[in-house]
Amino acid sequence: MLEPIPEAVEMPRGFRAGGVGCGLKADGELDLGLLVAEEPVAANALFTQNRLVGAHVTVCRRHLATSGGRVRAVLVNSKNANCATGETGVQDAVACCAALAQRLDCPTEQVLMVSTGVIGAPLPRQRILDHLDALVAATTEPNGGIDFARAIMTTDTYPKAISHAHDAGRVTGFAKGSGMIHPDLATMLAFYLTDQPCGDQATAQHALTEINDRSMQRVTVDGDTSPNDTVLLLHPAADPARSDAAPAPVANLTEVAQALARHIAADGEGASRLVTVEVRGAASERDAMIVGRVIATSPLVKTAIAGRDPNWGRIVSAAGRADIAFDPGAARVWVGPAEVFRHGRPAPEAEPRGAEHLQNERAVRIGIDLGMGSAAADVWTCDLTADYIHINADYRT
Amino acid sequence: MLEPIPEAVEMPRGFRAGGVGCGLKADGELDLGLLVAEEPVAANALFTQNRLVGAHVTVCRRHLATSGGRVRAVLVNSKNANCATGETGVQDAVACCAALAQRLDCPTEQVLMVSTGVIGAPLPRQRILDHLDALVAATTEPNGGIDFARAIMTTDTYPKAISHAHDAGRVTGFAKGSGMIHPDLATMLAFYLTDQPCGDQATAQHALTEINDRSMQRVTVDGDTSPNDTVLLLHPAADPARSDAAPAPVANLTEVAQALARHIAADGEGASRLVTVEVRGAASERDAMIVGRVIATSPLVKTAIAGRDPNWGRIVSAAGRADIAFDPGAARVWVGPAEVFRHGRPAPEAEPRGAEHLQNERAVRIGIDLGMGSAAADVWTCDLTADYIHINADYRT
Repeated sequence: MLEPIPEAVEMPRGFRAGGVGCGLKADGELDLGLLVAEEPVAANALFTQNRLVGAHVTVCRRHLATSGGRVRAVLVNSKNANCATGETGVQDAVACCAALAQRLDCPTEQVLMVSTGVIGAPLPRQRILDHLDALVAATTEPNGGIDFARAIMTTDTYPKAISHAHDAGRVTGFAKGSGMIHPDLATMLAFYLTDQPCGDQATAQHALTEINDRSMQRVTVDGDTSPNDTVLLLHPAADPARSDAAPAPVANLTEVAQALARHIAADGEGASRLVTVEVRGAASERDAMIVGRVIATSPLVKTAIAGRDPNWGRIVSAAGRADIAFDPGAARVWVGPAEVFRHGRPAPEAEPRGAEHLQNERAVRIGIDLGMGSAAADVWTCDLTADYIHINADYRT
Repeated sequence: MLEPIPEAVEMPRGFRAGGVGCGLKADGELDLGLLVAEEPVAANALFTQNRLVGAHVTVCRRHLATSGGRVRAVLVNSKNANCATGETGVQDAVACCAALAQRLDCPTEQVLMVSTGVIGAPLPRQRILDHLDALVAATTEPNGGIDFARAIMTTDTYPKAISHAHDAGRVTGFAKGSGMIHPDLATMLAFYLTDQPCGDQATAQHALTEINDRSMQRVTVDGDTSPNDTVLLLHPAADPARSDAAPAPVANLTEVAQALARHIAADGEGASRLVTVEVRGAASERDAMIVGRVIATSPLVKTAIAGRDPNWGRIVSAAGRADIAFDPGAARVWVGPAEVFRHGRPAPEAEPRGAEHLQNERAVRIGIDLGMGSAAADVWTCDLTADYIHINADYRT
């Protein structure tokens, strides 16, 4: 269910990655990451739909518009969101991009910057500028990929990187995110890199939306969203002179994106269980996703799982408040292998097996069949434990 | 901010209330409550909008339709929701109503039953029937009102009853609710009794919706809703021969309903703070309420308050994901008396006063001015503490 994170992350041809510590985190931990493409690549992006946006969102949008969607590098810092920092924050981000562009010998607008961390503190710009040389050098290290994944972590407990080789090339993805996780949009940072052509700008953007709808849009930790959410896809620039735009390798990218999405849920703040919410028998995939999200955001469902309680009542109740038609009297609910609710009635004899599943597995599954059709969707979340409270009562996001 | 709960709850003329223990709760605690009207009164009701509904909702709807909205008694049991119990559950509820009707010498359809507690367990019907005589007798006790309030408690830590006298008569309200609390609809049980005429059926129903929109619809504890939510208004039956239908005493009823709503938030599961979310400067009251609800349901805002952190970043972020237009760069945010965010920028010098407010007050307030107009709304919630998790991981609702 959870694909292991590799110790050495392979990069697609033409890409390098690295990370250094510049003192934003304590104890010299990695906090500054860099993705470099040897030649300009095409970039597609999705940003937060929150009305409050970090300075980097403004700068990324501007640079992508000016460069025609061409990118040489993506600079990422953790620990500081550069959000609610006004015009100064935008200038700080642009200055970092410009300084890096000089080192890479490319136009400023071909460098993007992404920030994540505490809202409202000024970006320690000088600290970042002082470490750019070391950062560029770090992208040639063999462990550059996993270092990049480490550098972008905030409350994550482990780095998130997945890389798959295919005949046509390689797809490598990085993500970070552990709290403030909820669809609409990505609610975390994710970077997908590939040497497989993804077609022209419009084709690739459409593909990225589709990939995201089936990955990050189906993860929820706490129903909150961040002002800095960003998903970036970097891929070989299509030759505008050729009209045979390649179709994007959607399936390959979706695999990596979903593997990362499950890791984000598994590493949810305070989580002790990765929970896959399986919705079946829906009239449409959209209906299934809506019901899945409501179940996956229910604090009562999530605390029941923390208590190892196969509480079908809370699952049906949560489904019942999604604005989707179904007859609870015909619904089925399962917890792992145990069908604990059948045709509107509890099946108490099945509950011990459900409780066992919650007790013994690290990755658990709960599900509901709505009896309305044949559409399905999975949504990923985690249980809600007292540790979530401790992390968020004491940490300033 | 929080009106004290009286030790002896005065009832409006013509009403009695009482409670007994029939063994649903352990240790002989009160678990069966009764409201009796000496003459049939008019009843208006609002029920849960969850697709899963308790048996009592089905029975109440049926009885109100048959009786033309006339009621002599309301029987309430806690600890068992009689929900997901199929046709047997409906028959159990009708049998309890019938047995009580016999004792009160009225038609069965003039008795309503309301249940709250664990979902999916069969209603211990015989236990309830065996205690009806004692229950009717208990309504003549001087402490019958507060006993009724105690009998309907589930995870509540104190009974919730408010009574106000006016020149025109008296309004008395009872409520229970502590978790699974979220608008849409009432998300708890509430009973409003008055000897003030509320006009004909249509007038009273319209008034009840309006009262509810400004009270229970503005409380949220955990964003979850229950299949058993019920709000009942009992009032003197209007004389159909007279056309001068009295206007309902909306203001008097709203006062009582809001006082109870605040108590429900204050007594939210695991709560250490009652939080009033003040939204100002909205384009409409509806906008203000929507923004207020998103802030009030944000786990990050609620854990920050548990941590006594005047975290304006989480408040603006939460407001930013409500689907309501505003410019975060023009917004103001306060925590108690401290304006911690002004015109899109933090005001760190104000934060210590905000932290002090959260530390020292039991009833705290946080607010945002959207700068879009002059409409306002208050929403009530509580902080999110580790105790919420412990209560819900270990308790089967």
